[in-house]
Amino acid sequence: MAFDFDPLFPAGTPAPAARWTGLAPFNFTGGNNDPDAIPLDGLMAAAQSVLAREGRTLSTYGLNSGPQGYRPLRDFLSAKLGRDAGMACTADDILIVSGSLQALDLVNAALLTRGDTVIVEQDNYQGTLTRLARLGVNAVGIPLDRDGMRMDLLAAALADLKARGVRPKFIYTIPTVQNPTGTILTLERRREMLRLADDYKVPIVEDDCYADLIWSGERPPALYAMSASGNVIHIGSFSKSIAPALRVGFVVAPWPVMSRMLALKTDAGSGSLEQMVLAEYCAPHFADHVPGLRMALRKKLETLMEALNEQFGTAAEFDDPKGGIFLWVKLPDTVDAQRLYQAALKRGVAINPGPDWSTDAGHSKSRMRLCFASPSHQEIRDGVAILAQVCRDEFGVPSRSGNVDKRVRD
Amino acid sequence: MAFDFDPLFPAGTPAPAARWTGLAPFNFTGGNNDPDAIPLDGLMAAAQSVLAREGRTLSTYGLNSGPQGYRPLRDFLSAKLGRDAGMACTADDILIVSGSLQALDLVNAALLTRGDTVIVEQDNYQGTLTRLARLGVNAVGIPLDRDGMRMDLLAAALADLKARGVRPKFIYTIPTVQNPTGTILTLERRREMLRLADDYKVPIVEDDCYADLIWSGERPPALYAMSASGNVIHIGSFSKSIAPALRVGFVVAPWPVMSRMLALKTDAGSGSLEQMVLAEYCAPHFADHVPGLRMALRKKLETLMEALNEQFGTAAEFDDPKGGIFLWVKLPDTVDAQRLYQAALKRGVAINPGPDWSTDAGHSKSRMRLCFASPSHQEIRDGVAILAQVCRDEFGVPSRSGNVDKRVRD
Repeated sequence: MAFDFDPLFPAGTPAPAARWTGLAPFNFTGGNNDPDAIPLDGLMAAAQSVLAREGRTLSTYGLNSGPQGYRPLRDFLSAKLGRDAGMACTADDILIVSGSLQALDLVNAALLTRGDTVIVEQDNYQGTLTRLARLGVNAVGIPLDRDGMRMDLLAAALADLKARGVRPKFIYTIPTVQNPTGTILTLERRREMLRLADDYKVPIVEDDCYADLIWSGERPPALYAMSASGNVIHIGSFSKSIAPALRVGFVVAPWPVMSRMLALKTDAGSGSLEQMVLAEYCAPHFADHVPGLRMALRKKLETLMEALNEQFGTAAEFDDPKGGIFLWVKLPDTVDAQRLYQAALKRGVAINPGPDWSTDAGHSKSRMRLCFASPSHQEIRDGVAILAQVCRDEFGVPSRSGNVDKRVRD
Repeated sequence: MAFDFDPLFPAGTPAPAARWTGLAPFNFTGGNNDPDAIPLDGLMAAAQSVLAREGRTLSTYGLNSGPQGYRPLRDFLSAKLGRDAGMACTADDILIVSGSLQALDLVNAALLTRGDTVIVEQDNYQGTLTRLARLGVNAVGIPLDRDGMRMDLLAAALADLKARGVRPKFIYTIPTVQNPTGTILTLERRREMLRLADDYKVPIVEDDCYADLIWSGERPPALYAMSASGNVIHIGSFSKSIAPALRVGFVVAPWPVMSRMLALKTDAGSGSLEQMVLAEYCAPHFADHVPGLRMALRKKLETLMEALNEQFGTAAEFDDPKGGIFLWVKLPDTVDAQRLYQAALKRGVAINPGPDWSTDAGHSKSRMRLCFASPSHQEIRDGVAILAQVCRDEFGVPSRSGNVDKRVRD
């Protein structure tokens, strides 16, 4: 008789996962990237040269670089963050982690406990919202406009919380190519956020994962760079700029936070082969690689926006984002994005329904996030056509039929 | 003024880490491996071939293999575990993780809550003991003899706990090259442990990280393989057989446990480049690689045992282990291993003091664990000579001076 594990599981652990059944044929979800934009030859050459030179250090945990990660990768990052984001930080301020998700887990573990309050952008990265919910942390969402988080509403929320005796543990923000809205927080608002953070003694967690993917190549300085008081924890990743499957991210943090994250990082270091290959590749090639990637992504975004205009007409509203890999789309109020998600998935199209990406169920009910980096141009066109047909079948919108039937594969 | 994070840290989080200051010149700690035994040419060739063939899948989280890890690596493992350990498991039963440490964290998170009880071998892996202590879990240690955990004492402990109304959450064991004792649980005791586990409805967590490193090359079947009821969770790693810095381990578990670990694994997959390179290398080469590694390790063990005999004489007692990378040494009762550790570290020699590796402070007070895979033969000889001199200076043993002074570098 099979052993019964059920009585052993403690209360309060997350629901068990379902078995994986593969990716949808038309997959507009997840931070997957453009396969053609992977710098494969460069990574292969880097693997050969770094392994030939230093491969035997794989016999030692952490490659003799200690628990903060491979030293040459931290050196590259400190130079890159200085050049691109205006940040003055050294290798000692940087912790290499297993993707920015581990960074979020470590920051949360270092600072949060059940019942705490955190301030976030109202429309936000699902992985952050689910993490906070699991931890029993109250996420206060601040609405955004085209310039990112609204500072008047942040000021009001901080004042309101203070009046109620609540000191939020941090402000979590994606200021540069916000997920899912694609907005960039203006320089003026960055100054205002830092001022408010200092006034209320609330640190900022800056998730900067998409900052390399601004079409213009020009980004505002990081909040970390602009902070006079050192109240910013900065998170970044190579997932969007090189390849997500590598699972290499990083945190830049003041030592009081760094030393606690190190105590909580119980995995004896992140994957060294990947750190070695990235350092070897990125030091000479990163700056040359990224513009081509941006161009490829921008072209896919244009294909997506054209397809939406063609298939949904005025029923799909969106702003042209300044960078990134996703588009945040508003559908007519009659559309229930969760139902649309379920119906589309049965037809092979995966989307992110808005309510998973927002603290405000009403605001996000008819919204969806579409990721465009991974599918091919043809898959984008075909997937959006199917999605429009599903939406019409379920909700009667978009009303015009266009040339949908002709283009759909099924 | 610098921002003050201190008021924000919740109570009960681990103490902050100290800054890393490098490895000791004579380092007998940690699961580091023999640099000369890394199959570097093979790994380099594997990196080239697998990247050339499949590198573009790095653009997708999990390489299109889903959340359990790169499918070819799981296929290799299912074949290897069947051949070497007698285990009947498929790729669907295997989860690739970031080293066996992540496996321990996931198993613990799935099954444990504060106040729980777990049964362990009395002398045990420090990382397991510190994890349980952090979680507020009571670790009941069962003494070992030369055949591994004593089943009479396990039976007594289970009966005693049951009489007190305590159902332990699991028995954590390293049955095959136990850490730190180097013992191998006999076939008969394996049967007895499984019988007791079934009788008391307590599952077993089998940590099999060192099982590839038995000098004879012959191992008993895994507990997982011998279980009729499916009450065993099996953990393994490539750290000891290929390279620790890779951070690739695995768990084989029944679906009720697997599905919960998947829900708790929030890092969007472990490093893919390493999984790809390992699968590509191991499928054709693993079985040919390991015998050479074993021979290199055995030679280092012999150097260590010779050095201990020469420098400590009868003051150092130990059994010749049947495999692995560590030696568990008993010094005279007058020696306080914690003090020895502190004094030796000042002289550049790092050891693991027994009390960190045991649930019984009295039993382990004068014991130490010495890891021999990473230092060179000369470093082993020189380090043991310094250690003997430090021990003599601090505790008056070993009493004879031998030819210590002549051989010590300093």
